[in-house]
Amino acid sequence: MALRTGEEYIASIEALDLEANVLGQPSGDLAAHPLVRPSLRAVAVTYDGAHDEELAPLFRVHSPLIDGEVNRFTHLHQSKDDLVNKVLMQRHCGNRTACCFQRCVGLDAANAVYSVTYECDQARGSDYHGRFRDYWAWVQRQDLVVDGAMTDPKGDRGKRPSEQADPDLYLRVVDHRPDGIVVRGAKFHQTGMLNSHEILVMPTLALRAGEEDWAVCFALPADAPGLRYVLGRQASDTRKLEGDPIDVGNPTFGGQEVLTVLDDVFVPTERVFLDSEVEWSGPLVERFAAYHRQSYGGCKVGVGDVLIGATALIAQMNGVARASHVRDKIVEMIHLNETLFACGLACSARGQATEAGNYLVDLLLANVCKLNVTRFPYELARLATDVAGGLLGTLPAARELDDPELGPYVRKYLAAAGGWDPLERVKVLRLIENLVAGAGAVAYLVESMHGAGSPMAQRIMIGRQAGLDQKIELAKQILGIGY
Amino acid sequence: MALRTGEEYIASIEALDLEANVLGQPSGDLAAHPLVRPSLRAVAVTYDGAHDEELAPLFRVHSPLIDGEVNRFTHLHQSKDDLVNKVLMQRHCGNRTACCFQRCVGLDAANAVYSVTYECDQARGSDYHGRFRDYWAWVQRQDLVVDGAMTDPKGDRGKRPSEQADPDLYLRVVDHRPDGIVVRGAKFHQTGMLNSHEILVMPTLALRAGEEDWAVCFALPADAPGLRYVLGRQASDTRKLEGDPIDVGNPTFGGQEVLTVLDDVFVPTERVFLDSEVEWSGPLVERFAAYHRQSYGGCKVGVGDVLIGATALIAQMNGVARASHVRDKIVEMIHLNETLFACGLACSARGQATEAGNYLVDLLLANVCKLNVTRFPYELARLATDVAGGLLGTLPAARELDDPELGPYVRKYLAAAGGWDPLERVKVLRLIENLVAGAGAVAYLVESMHGAGSPMAQRIMIGRQAGLDQKIELAKQILGIGY
Amino acid sequence: MALRTGEEYIASIEALDLEANVLGQPSGDLAAHPLVRPSLRAVAVTYDGAHDEELAPLFRVHSPLIDGEVNRFTHLHQSKDDLVNKVLMQRHCGNRTACCFQRCVGLDAANAVYSVTYECDQARGSDYHGRFRDYWAWVQRQDLVVDGAMTDPKGDRGKRPSEQADPDLYLRVVDHRPDGIVVRGAKFHQTGMLNSHEILVMPTLALRAGEEDWAVCFALPADAPGLRYVLGRQASDTRKLEGDPIDVGNPTFGGQEVLTVLDDVFVPTERVFLDSEVEWSGPLVERFAAYHRQSYGGCKVGVGDVLIGATALIAQMNGVARASHVRDKIVEMIHLNETLFACGLACSARGQATEAGNYLVDLLLANVCKLNVTRFPYELARLATDVAGGLLGTLPAARELDDPELGPYVRKYLAAAGGWDPLERVKVLRLIENLVAGAGAVAYLVESMHGAGSPMAQRIMIGRQAGLDQKIELAKQILGIGY
Amino acid sequence: MALRTGEEYIASIEALDLEANVLGQPSGDLAAHPLVRPSLRAVAVTYDGAHDEELAPLFRVHSPLIDGEVNRFTHLHQSKDDLVNKVLMQRHCGNRTACCFQRCVGLDAANAVYSVTYECDQARGSDYHGRFRDYWAWVQRQDLVVDGAMTDPKGDRGKRPSEQADPDLYLRVVDHRPDGIVVRGAKFHQTGMLNSHEILVMPTLALRAGEEDWAVCFALPADAPGLRYVLGRQASDTRKLEGDPIDVGNPTFGGQEVLTVLDDVFVPTERVFLDSEVEWSGPLVERFAAYHRQSYGGCKVGVGDVLIGATALIAQMNGVARASHVRDKIVEMIHLNETLFACGLACSARGQATEAGNYLVDLLLANVCKLNVTRFPYELARLATDVAGGLLGTLPAARELDDPELGPYVRKYLAAAGGWDPLERVKVLRLIENLVAGAGAVAYLVESMHGAGSPMAQRIMIGRQAGLDQKIELAKQILGIGY
Repeated sequence: MALRTGEEYIASIEALDLEANVLGQPSGDLAAHPLVRPSLRAVAVTYDGAHDEELAPLFRVHSPLIDGEVNRFTHLHQSKDDLVNKVLMQRHCGNRTACCFQRCVGLDAANAVYSVTYECDQARGSDYHGRFRDYWAWVQRQDLVVDGAMTDPKGDRGKRPSEQADPDLYLRVVDHRPDGIVVRGAKFHQTGMLNSHEILVMPTLALRAGEEDWAVCFALPADAPGLRYVLGRQASDTRKLEGDPIDVGNPTFGGQEVLTVLDDVFVPTERVFLDSEVEWSGPLVERFAAYHRQSYGGCKVGVGDVLIGATALIAQMNGVARASHVRDKIVEMIHLNETLFACGLACSARGQATEAGNYLVDLLLANVCKLNVTRFPYELARLATDVAGGLLGTLPAARELDDPELGPYVRKYLAAAGGWDPLERVKVLRLIENLVAGAGAVAYLVESMHGAGSPMAQRIMIGRQAGLDQKIELAKQILGIGY
Repeated sequence: MALRTGEEYIASIEALDLEANVLGQPSGDLAAHPLVRPSLRAVAVTYDGAHDEELAPLFRVHSPLIDGEVNRFTHLHQSKDDLVNKVLMQRHCGNRTACCFQRCVGLDAANAVYSVTYECDQARGSDYHGRFRDYWAWVQRQDLVVDGAMTDPKGDRGKRPSEQADPDLYLRVVDHRPDGIVVRGAKFHQTGMLNSHEILVMPTLALRAGEEDWAVCFALPADAPGLRYVLGRQASDTRKLEGDPIDVGNPTFGGQEVLTVLDDVFVPTERVFLDSEVEWSGPLVERFAAYHRQSYGGCKVGVGDVLIGATALIAQMNGVARASHVRDKIVEMIHLNETLFACGLACSARGQATEAGNYLVDLLLANVCKLNVTRFPYELARLATDVAGGLLGTLPAARELDDPELGPYVRKYLAAAGGWDPLERVKVLRLIENLVAGAGAVAYLVESMHGAGSPMAQRIMIGRQAGLDQKIELAKQILGIGY
Repeated sequence: MALRTGEEYIASIEALDLEANVLGQPSGDLAAHPLVRPSLRAVAVTYDGAHDEELAPLFRVHSPLIDGEVNRFTHLHQSKDDLVNKVLMQRHCGNRTACCFQRCVGLDAANAVYSVTYECDQARGSDYHGRFRDYWAWVQRQDLVVDGAMTDPKGDRGKRPSEQADPDLYLRVVDHRPDGIVVRGAKFHQTGMLNSHEILVMPTLALRAGEEDWAVCFALPADAPGLRYVLGRQASDTRKLEGDPIDVGNPTFGGQEVLTVLDDVFVPTERVFLDSEVEWSGPLVERFAAYHRQSYGGCKVGVGDVLIGATALIAQMNGVARASHVRDKIVEMIHLNETLFACGLACSARGQATEAGNYLVDLLLANVCKLNVTRFPYELARLATDVAGGLLGTLPAARELDDPELGPYVRKYLAAAGGWDPLERVKVLRLIENLVAGAGAVAYLVESMHGAGSPMAQRIMIGRQAGLDQKIELAKQILGIGY
Repeated sequence: MALRTGEEYIASIEALDLEANVLGQPSGDLAAHPLVRPSLRAVAVTYDGAHDEELAPLFRVHSPLIDGEVNRFTHLHQSKDDLVNKVLMQRHCGNRTACCFQRCVGLDAANAVYSVTYECDQARGSDYHGRFRDYWAWVQRQDLVVDGAMTDPKGDRGKRPSEQADPDLYLRVVDHRPDGIVVRGAKFHQTGMLNSHEILVMPTLALRAGEEDWAVCFALPADAPGLRYVLGRQASDTRKLEGDPIDVGNPTFGGQEVLTVLDDVFVPTERVFLDSEVEWSGPLVERFAAYHRQSYGGCKVGVGDVLIGATALIAQMNGVARASHVRDKIVEMIHLNETLFACGLACSARGQATEAGNYLVDLLLANVCKLNVTRFPYELARLATDVAGGLLGTLPAARELDDPELGPYVRKYLAAAGGWDPLERVKVLRLIENLVAGAGAVAYLVESMHGAGSPMAQRIMIGRQAGLDQKIELAKQILGIGY
């Protein structure tokens, strides 16, 4: 099958005819719903890249798995360069969408499952890896979007899965059948669930003996019976229902976050990739997280570029682009954004082959990358707010500019420097608002904090991966202590 | 007249029957409009304080101007203790409303106009001060809300008022009549305009010879002919129209920001407090700004307290309240919030009597206070986001919990630690969202940046007020250079 | 007795004829030793203030304890204004000395012991307070320097005093005699010990039943038998021995830190202020710490002023004083320094009378003050380093300028802007070096971190004092949860 | 010639018999001087790496220039991997020396001169590149240390070279002779000058037409007639003269900074690499700076590792290694240190071939790297100070532990947790002190700020390299403005 275009992708999602609750009621035609459609458009960008002359060398790559060309968003990384190119591709998509484009999580999940199943098979004599290879070859050939699903509801986070008042608060196997398993639970925060063809489910933490029911990894089609969806709210989400794209801020693209329920869903054996393998849940979480923490060194940087550009543009419109303090703030935004990029690149450039053959990022640096992502976008947002000026919080609706009676006043007093039309000034302010305190902030700020794991998860990994004992030895060596 | 209650205040605003454009159309019954009503409720808290047994000693104060008891929100400060008590009162109101309660700006304007008009009269033989005393005595007796109005549209900020393509981009006198003046222009970012009885207009910058037309200060009733209002949008504003207070986050209170147009409005002479007095515009801006920068050391701290409380509460509900990193983040939030409070107190405790007799805060420390306010609430918001968890960006609508089909799933998987009902967890998350990325963020973040002047304005004042030359002398003295 | 002058004070210390080890050998004439003399000069500034016409109103205060005028450095605070004035006095002394002037710790100890002994007597029927009043009245009349001594060696900090391998690692009573007690142990970090007349010893932590031996507070003359002293090293300390004050940086003033050993020292009963009173050790530590954390909001600010002045001066000498980024960095230094001052003022302005009648600072804000002190001086030092330029780390010895052969080259190439002599440029650079990486950094950086307790101690107190439960109630009230 | 060992290197420097002023007088046997010897030992580590079995693959590399194996410290980078390996090698050397090892600057200068002379020759028909190839081939074969010399004294930094009161404040050509040139001036901050065989001089800023005299690049042997040296002071430098390596902190290694005067020195034509080439001074400065800013992403990280290790070790000795706040601080140190490393790697991994064939780092990311280096080591130092405890500023001299009378007390009260000997605790504290406030802080803090250019230089480059216009286009594209 040829690589799909964005248009073909959208048609394929429409054909799935998924159902979900949105704002407290059934959505009707979900793929056309104004709260969902922008997220399809964002994913479509990941498809169109493969059909753009300039970008194709970045988006298209040869996959040994199918011995054919695939969209890099379904690729199993074969080299450090592949890891670096992933980050470059993500930055580009962020540049084009100014939002989360929602296709990385499946890519990151696949690369993690690929190597973990291999090692599990080697150690246990199981045959998960072969199943997964078959599955993923099909995904590559069909050029699908796969939603990686990890985060369980967790209930009382001070307790293990089996200690919860309700054992379903961590997704688990409730029945083993000859031809497959039955699973029950939910996954929170499922970015891009309702524009995906498939869902690839993983456990959410390192498990122990006695917790076999929760040690499960499998894939399902998005329209499998028993899957139930509830769309999450975003700040200013209903502006998308008002019919005026300007007040939305980002007029074309957006994200989505979905509470996904698996209500006793049957999974056939060939789509089960780990079952009761408690000791492999830890490595799976760790690797998926590492890949996804790398991702943020590309995608958030790409969104950051747009925020920086919008900030520089509003500075022109405000007549302050040459003020030294404004230039200084923009340089600071660039500096922080490029520091994130550097981290994304570095963990890629230091990647290594797994036993299964695909490449894994450097675990320490990937966690360092993400921990910076939990900080710097917030400072970028603060600086953008500073430069944008108070209108960021007080601007009237765009349609006020067309009001027959008050519109002329609004236009008159929103006059900009440099000959810009007041409406263009409004557009730029609304884009910045979208990213710092609107629907876009869900991806740019909240997800930067919690996506791919909350900061404490990165700190724990950094502590583990840093080789502290060896650093202590260095100090001892300098001092001749214990030598 | 007795001090009004909150209820009486609301009735008095309803009686004004103001009109405004809201979301692109005439508002209808403005005082009852769901986007405006929460702001009346917030102001009402400032009235009710004077009728609360415990709070009355703080909210009621004897005013020498009318030799009677007034609400402190209309008081001309008579001592350092008055300045300190203002901050305490503001923190309390922030605690009760979790938003901007919108009555400080008139208080701060009055105290600035009071001393500046006095000094102008002394220097120039004018009679502005007497006019203002009469006006403000009436305000005190009537216990009114006065909106202080300073920020002009400014157009190209690299240009002076007279250099603008449109001279109206700074509000100005367009006609002098025997009985008064006619003014034209607009004021941006008018917090609380549509719940005020009066508007007290001031120039927005230090003016020079040749800029007399812009050097004007005066008061008007909010319903004066020629005043036109357009309500600003806030993040997630239309959730207030959905009929479910839970998703709003702050179910009762809120702010408002208004673009206010003065379309050739007549101001009678007895309400003109500066006219063509270019050399007094600078001191007026400086003092108003200083008082208002002090204010933020009270009100934002009060909102910060609620955010800290909500963060500690969600930590309990998530089962992580005892985790050392969570406690550490909450301590950091407290530390930053109290640092702001310390600055608000310090500039008050170092206040001094003006020539007119009322008390002015320490200019340097008031600017230091506000500059910290442009930073710390952002870090508080970031830390609250960290502790709250990813649901902050992905939570479904509250009414999903009642959905006959999906509601049971949503409730099941939103189960909280400590026996909290899922709906209570939703409420707390929505309150935090309101403050960090919703309508409340307009006051807590954007206004913290730009209200009372953007950070560069504080930096300039800090540079001016710091006595740098004297510090250089200290270094020389230590070194014996030039002695 | 009249208040002493600085000169009289120095003579009185010389008369004590103390002995100490310095750099590994007995010091000889200690008061004249170049490593100690600067610290006497610094303390002398606290005496001379009382004899300076302009400063006397600040330094002299009426003490009800002796019904006479005392130096404020021995005063028991009688009001909030006294607390504020203490901070103002400390800032002034920092301005004059650019170092720690070492007389606050006794002042802070006395105010803590005064109120704690009173409350202990009320609760226990003891007579400590009367003893202490007698003692302190004598100190006031003699206008003495008292070194407050708190920090025990602590050994393994994970263990309680009685769990240590050596119980002496926390100072303790080893014998009770009819006329007094015998104590053994040591106190670390004794700032200003060797220029003090007296030492006032306190326990270092809140003690429990079973730890009575360590719950002891008493005073001794600095020359009491059994007291042994070892001077601590400071960065670049031996430059003071080289005979060239320029390379020292601060040519006149400096601090000292002393390891003080109490080797079975006898303390007569009238100088024992707590004995076996485990439940009063906690309050004593807490109050002393709070007073001393307030102090840092004055003294470090005063030193910061000098650092800011020196930085502004070197910017002039480098020809960059008008560069916008340089001005911006200096404004940032001022801002941070004044934030510290604001905290020092605020905890004073919110002080309250103790049961004993003297005034105690606000515990929460005093801890907030100190926690900021563990951060901002570091950023001030970093910014000073930035503005000063690379010569800060590479400057040759001052005496190279006089070298017959190379001196002319050194002078030629150290040419400064603005007509400054190269030697003056060297002096300013050395002063900055002294504060950011020399002997002065011990007080300005290390002591800012650990003096009056390490940052974790402040965090614990902030967590305790913040009223977190009440903040949670505020959030619940806004949300109508549990009401 | 075979690659030299460290021992052979030291002998070769001793043979040069250089002379310098140290602390105001002629040094005598310079290579043996206690202030200089540690810096020879540090450089020797760069030689010994090539003879260590484990490290040789990193330190030895094939050079096409001489078609033979060279020490990587003299290598012209042939690939991205070469750039990455440079950073790895530098981190290793930092690990081994805990100081600046002083051999990078010549490496960085050579790579910059190599490509710039090539491009100059292409544009101008000059023959600088051939001369430089010959020169550098000799350097590689001889395995020499070359000191890159860039920073001019600059005098009044607000003025161009020709505007200075003394034109020599920027190094310049004062005479052209048939066989060479005569130069006059000085270079400041010459790290490692007195342990180098050669000096490679470059201009310090982008020059313009009319400034030809200053546009000069050339090499000289370190013992050329007319070269005069004055050693810079470092904090606590004279501890190296006291005979006790423990108080020095770093007992073996150290750096040096030298004021280098060129007093009418003759340079033969074959060692002149740019002469009057004003338009090539800018690119040369830019590239040298970029390489050197990359370097800091390796060397400072290596020193940071030691500081982290020492901090973790002192935490063990203090008995607090398991306290959550201590672990958290150490994780933060690691995080910041690895962020620097990520930046060093990223600018390397994104390097590109120059026209001359050697590889140049990514200019934007190299500047981002260095700008972070001007910040994070300061926070590492602050955190190390926090964990180390107050003894960092108050510790007595190590020899006090051996004092017959007081030594037993000092040992008793310096008792450590975990069975460590007090003297080992002293050693670790002195190492930390060395890095945060001693001689090591010159390299770890001051040089991190100013080496390879002060932070403003990086900000300017970041502003230039960031492609801000393209970011503005991205924002316009999202908004459909101007499309």
